[in-house]
Amino acid sequence: MPLRYFEDFHVGETFELGSRIVTAADIIDFARQFDPQPFHTDPARAQESVFGGLVASGWHTASLYMRLLVDGLVDMIQSSMGSPGVDKIEWLKPVRPGDTLSGRATIAELIPSKSRADRGIIKTLGELRNQKGEVVMTIRGVGFFGRRPATEPSP
Amino acid sequence: MPLRYFEDFHVGETFELGSRIVTAADIIDFARQFDPQPFHTDPARAQESVFGGLVASGWHTASLYMRLLVDGLVDMIQSSMGSPGVDKIEWLKPVRPGDTLSGRATIAELIPSKSRADRGIIKTLGELRNQKGEVVMTIRGVGFFGRRPATEPSP
Repeated sequence: MPLRYFEDFHVGETFELGSRIVTAADIIDFARQFDPQPFHTDPARAQESVFGGLVASGWHTASLYMRLLVDGLVDMIQSSMGSPGVDKIEWLKPVRPGDTLSGRATIAELIPSKSRADRGIIKTLGELRNQKGEVVMTIRGVGFFGRRPATEPSP
Repeated sequence: MPLRYFEDFHVGETFELGSRIVTAADIIDFARQFDPQPFHTDPARAQESVFGGLVASGWHTASLYMRLLVDGLVDMIQSSMGSPGVDKIEWLKPVRPGDTLSGRATIAELIPSKSRADRGIIKTLGELRNQKGEVVMTIRGVGFFGRRPATEPSP
């Protein structure tokens, strides 16, 4: 399958992004570096916390979604040019050791850049579900992607 | 200094969160796990990209901000009870190898929880600057924190 340009997407298109298991070691490793709160790093103290056990940092969950997004969507696009930010993230349910997270992204908006003719903005509505089908995170992402050059005909 | 409760903060209060150097190895390690796009993982291909060199994943930058936030603010609060999400992130400038990032958080809103008497919502306006003083990221964060029990007098 040839790589896609910005023009090859349509609003409402949905991509299944695959899945990933999260282990206690993954949760603790990430949190020791980036979010060392006891309910992310210390199983015993996590048990005493409002979560009643170890839970993944929301930043870990968001980063895992990004990995699934790259593997399942970004890699099929001709040219990724980074992102200006994220419109919103909601962490809806705790992610616990042993959870399997599955990602899905829906194309929400396609906006040709006004200032740069070579790129367009793709807004996505992303979600991660656990093995029980519960949505654990939603995310409104924004990315810059390459447009088809005028010299290249549409397929 | 005693740990603070939700009641001990006021809107407009600002916290300097310390700083952190980001190396090329840090950038590549994070990106190989969570955001394997060539401009985050491969110095040679990054040079050909729109960034003209290796840049940190925005998720790496956001996670580094979280680390500074925990060390500089969350750790001084009596009880952190997690976060329902993030209202907005803006990645304004690329983060490059060797950059020193400094964090600052300002209390934007203090909202007592309507449904749970034991906690309040603290909304923060966060920013990371590089060594040139340029703002590389802004973030509107939301956290749940413990309130002072009625049995405990104000200091």
